Amino acid sequence: MAAVMRRVVCIFMWLSVCQVSGAFIPNELNRTLQNLMQHYKISNQDFFNQKPVFPREPLKGNAELKMVYMYGVLEEYEKLLGNMLKQLPTPSPQLATSGTRTASLSASDEIRSNLMKVLSKMQELKRNNYKEQAALLEQLRKLEDIEVGNFKVQSKALSELTWIYEEASSLADDKRRRRRRRRQTRTRLHQQA
Amino acid sequence: MAAVMRRVVCIFMWLSVCQVSGAFIPNELNRTLQNLMQHYKISNQDFFNQKPVFPREPLKGNAELKMVYMYGVLEEYEKLLGNMLKQLPTPSPQLATSGTRTASLSASDEIRSNLMKVLSKMQELKRNNYKEQAALLEQLRKLEDIEVGNFKVQSKALSELTWIYEEASSLADDKRRRRRRRRQTRTRLHQQA
Repeated sequence: MAAVMRRVVCIFMWLSVCQVSGAFIPNELNRTLQNLMQHYKISNQDFFNQKPVFPREPLKGNAELKMVYMYGVLEEYEKLLGNMLKQLPTPSPQLATSGTRTASLSASDEIRSNLMKVLSKMQELKRNNYKEQAALLEQLRKLEDIEVGNFKVQSKALSELTWIYEEASSLADDKRRRRRRRRQTRTRLHQQA
Repeated sequence: MAAVMRRVVCIFMWLSVCQVSGAFIPNELNRTLQNLMQHYKISNQDFFNQKPVFPREPLKGNAELKMVYMYGVLEEYEKLLGNMLKQLPTPSPQLATSGTRTASLSASDEIRSNLMKVLSKMQELKRNNYKEQAALLEQLRKLEDIEVGNFKVQSKALSELTWIYEEASSLADDKRRRRRRRRQTRTRLHQQA
């Protein structure tokens, strides 16, 4: 009885972690994930340790910034799934002759195929909806290549500083104005209602 | 005559590079930068090689994304100025006794003081206006610490994938709706005018 109760509680917690609302996720992807979870099993203690890989808190606030963070998460899933694929055993024709080994190979082939399906879905989602965020992160990464110790670069950066300072101040000022306008519109609508 | 013309062209080009509009930049910062430029001199050939350290193109488009990029640029300036400070000679009491060396030390002390002023202004601008962007970049950097080769992490990430897929799709869908609403409002206003 205790074991049944524990399982019911586990399923309930699993559903609350995953929050499968199903508004966007294709049924096939859902099934593929359930199959994969049969192989990638960990102890309940590890699974319910209240330490998610991707915390939900950073997704509060500005929708545009949420999308940039989400693009980072999608990129991380690509790395994760790529690693999972690399860690699978490579099928070998020699091994395939033995009966029991053929079964084990088929299992890893199925996992491989499922991982590829998930990877493809995540890449599709990223490619079709996150173009601006991809371009932004590419530009941010290019900044890391700047030779900060190079005298010529330092000299040119100093000469560009005035423009950067103006642009950075102007962007922040525009944002404050937009926020003020939105607040005023809301107040006016509230007064009219 | 040719030399005068070349200088006039150089000044014109320098102004077009810096675009000193003066709407936000404090006069003192402008003066400090001009002083620093006396020390950080490079040849005209290097200065006008059409290869800016911070390209202007990435700043086209969405204002929120521009601000994230701009935060990255401000961070890069911190690194640059930090390096420039490190590269200055350290004042030593022994060297300060010699007359000519005292003069050279004073010059580097002035550069140090000017660099500190510029660094402080850039940090102030970042701190007062770019809090959301700072939090976002911190969260993005935390993603790099995820142990993508760890089996337990892979298992938990698979169980979180459904929620991530839903959230990523929903964010993209919301953005499309907001864009559509804005377009419809613009069309209506245009028809009313």
